[in-house]
Amino acid sequence: MRVSVFRKAHFNAAHRLHNPEWDDETNKKVFGKCNNPNYHGHNYNLTVKVTGEIDPRTGYVLDVKILKDIMEEHVLQRFDHKNLNLDTEEFKNLNPTAENIVVVIWNILRQHLDEKLDLTVRLYETERNFVEYPAQ
Amino acid sequence: MRVSVFRKAHFNAAHRLHNPEWDDETNKKVFGKCNNPNYHGHNYNLTVKVTGEIDPRTGYVLDVKILKDIMEEHVLQRFDHKNLNLDTEEFKNLNPTAENIVVVIWNILRQHLDEKLDLTVRLYETERNFVEYPAQ
Amino acid sequence: MRVSVFRKAHFNAAHRLHNPEWDDETNKKVFGKCNNPNYHGHNYNLTVKVTGEIDPRTGYVLDVKILKDIMEEHVLQRFDHKNLNLDTEEFKNLNPTAENIVVVIWNILRQHLDEKLDLTVRLYETERNFVEYPAQ
Amino acid sequence: MRVSVFRKAHFNAAHRLHNPEWDDETNKKVFGKCNNPNYHGHNYNLTVKVTGEIDPRTGYVLDVKILKDIMEEHVLQRFDHKNLNLDTEEFKNLNPTAENIVVVIWNILRQHLDEKLDLTVRLYETERNFVEYPAQ
Amino acid sequence: MRVSVFRKAHFNAAHRLHNPEWDDETNKKVFGKCNNPNYHGHNYNLTVKVTGEIDPRTGYVLDVKILKDIMEEHVLQRFDHKNLNLDTEEFKNLNPTAENIVVVIWNILRQHLDEKLDLTVRLYETERNFVEYPAQ
Amino acid sequence: MRVSVFRKAHFNAAHRLHNPEWDDETNKKVFGKCNNPNYHGHNYNLTVKVTGEIDPRTGYVLDVKILKDIMEEHVLQRFDHKNLNLDTEEFKNLNPTAENIVVVIWNILRQHLDEKLDLTVRLYETERNFVEYPAQ
Repeated sequence: MRVSVFRKAHFNAAHRLHNPEWDDETNKKVFGKCNNPNYHGHNYNLTVKVTGEIDPRTGYVLDVKILKDIMEEHVLQRFDHKNLNLDTEEFKNLNPTAENIVVVIWNILRQHLDEKLDLTVRLYETERNFVEYPAQ
Repeated sequence: MRVSVFRKAHFNAAHRLHNPEWDDETNKKVFGKCNNPNYHGHNYNLTVKVTGEIDPRTGYVLDVKILKDIMEEHVLQRFDHKNLNLDTEEFKNLNPTAENIVVVIWNILRQHLDEKLDLTVRLYETERNFVEYPAQ
Repeated sequence: MRVSVFRKAHFNAAHRLHNPEWDDETNKKVFGKCNNPNYHGHNYNLTVKVTGEIDPRTGYVLDVKILKDIMEEHVLQRFDHKNLNLDTEEFKNLNPTAENIVVVIWNILRQHLDEKLDLTVRLYETERNFVEYPAQ
Repeated sequence: MRVSVFRKAHFNAAHRLHNPEWDDETNKKVFGKCNNPNYHGHNYNLTVKVTGEIDPRTGYVLDVKILKDIMEEHVLQRFDHKNLNLDTEEFKNLNPTAENIVVVIWNILRQHLDEKLDLTVRLYETERNFVEYPAQ
Repeated sequence: MRVSVFRKAHFNAAHRLHNPEWDDETNKKVFGKCNNPNYHGHNYNLTVKVTGEIDPRTGYVLDVKILKDIMEEHVLQRFDHKNLNLDTEEFKNLNPTAENIVVVIWNILRQHLDEKLDLTVRLYETERNFVEYPAQ
Repeated sequence: MRVSVFRKAHFNAAHRLHNPEWDDETNKKVFGKCNNPNYHGHNYNLTVKVTGEIDPRTGYVLDVKILKDIMEEHVLQRFDHKNLNLDTEEFKNLNPTAENIVVVIWNILRQHLDEKLDLTVRLYETERNFVEYPAQ
């Protein structure tokens, strides 16, 4: 009787897509407007999905308040109102595409959840563009 | 050529989270504001997913009007504008967490659908908190 | 150069529509399912609109963090996870229709905002039913 | 490290549900209002999901601008502001139910994506009725 | 103490924009894809706003169930799953632009509401294009 | 018979709130996380409302495609994927609060619309925080 529990959150951040191994022209060609050297930004919406058995004493898979606190402490405090390229360790040497951000967030959250629980993370960069990891 | 068909509905209900085997202090500690003895409530949004083969005569997996009627007769009439703890058989002895509610609704709908059809139910307790059964 | 600033919040509450001056049959006829003596509930979504001049030093009409704190302290803490009929002074003797709730919330917020600022409150009882006060 | 990338788009079209092998009475009985001989219409919302490995040079599974262009050239230009029954080859002899439309769109997009990429298409006929292919 | 009450509904319809006093080339130039002779369609979302005094006995400006019934009987039954140009009296000789539709709906609803109540109608043709009458 | 026509668009930008006449401590105290010297960002959603008489020949107040083009040419191309503080003339010496941005956008659009048309602009900085100018 495995149930998935979902919790949403959001953070606002600046970023720039850039590959330092390429010259400016190639970066401009590949990343277009997203390569702007002065950065642009997004409201990132995050949906975290945790799957496990219902605990018969509480009726919870996990207390969603605990999940909310883990998300706030380890994801939102790290990335909210930040410049992903300049202000974070994670993206100093990793291009902050939606794909790379969602994998980074999954790796962060994975360390703070019981190993019996499965984890999937979805990240909306805009209402029309979003990513999910791991793929289902 | 299996296709999934989704139908949304909603119901408004009061509930209280409580484990009668625990004392008041433990209940308060575990369930927080959700343990309020006078109840609180939610607009529950429900997404039912039914999967099967397309019938070549109709082009339907199933007629979504039939699915809508099943949801209204067996779920909405039972839970809409009700106190889940006091007014329903299902939650007289089962804590009405989102996890337990989604399993109860799945069991109700499962009896009214052709066994060739697969069923998944998602239940939104708020826009930010939701659950799905069975887990995928 | 008057600008309106909007801030959203939400609270979850139980309520029952009932006029104690009427007999049960009349209450049932007028309020239908909303008259359930055991209560039902909603996720109430609130949009508060505050209008005033931009302060040239900050570029703000008012700091939206201050508005958020006023809403949390005076509205959400009072009504979130409560039974409006049983747990609040405001609706002990006032029928908690959306219309009456929005006027009550307006009166509460009005006391905590500078009189130079205009105030309008919108309250969503469901996605399809909502109210606004004062009418524009 | 497979990630899913999602892109949304929409098109507005007229259609009519009808099985030419049935008489008018049967069509009316099975398809109800959707059988109106003068057509009705929808804003179709489309979510395309593409799954693959992250390219370490770009940080992309695929450039979402390329996916957007494929969707516009091969789906939107074909179906937007069209009568699906009269103006398209695909539905001249195929009943344009949501189920059939989503399979047709999947087949179109499949031809324009690298075979290493997996593809899933979701189609919203209304906010409350939608379909997905292939079923997961 | 005037409060506005809002109720949402939707209908799905086909239409075509066309001015019979113009030649085909002018129609095509002015209305573009919306001039398709075989029609296209939309999910029209409707928000009806009714403003008046709160009745102290009910706590209602008007019973939203009554408003819902008026909208269903006089607007949805007339326009839902219809071809606006071919199936309705209102648009036989009136171009069914969003602007004209919203005025037509306002005129229909105005006849069925107490004259003490003010009325505003908003009509969404798509999520990005919508109209309101009367202008505020 | 004045009708309002609304059109939505969005742009993604980085910004920082800062008053150069204040020291760092005061800026930090007033603007909090929004004062981050490395910038953060948002998906700005824009709703433009234009009010006027319906032209009886077209049934339009104005052709929404023309409004869309004006918004793209004069607002989106100027601000999309930009750093508002560094990349734009408008905010070189003006703090890019939501209030100031909405007034700037109104002034830009006002120059490109017929003076018979009234104009209101709403700007969403996040789903929960938004502003409107002029106030109504």
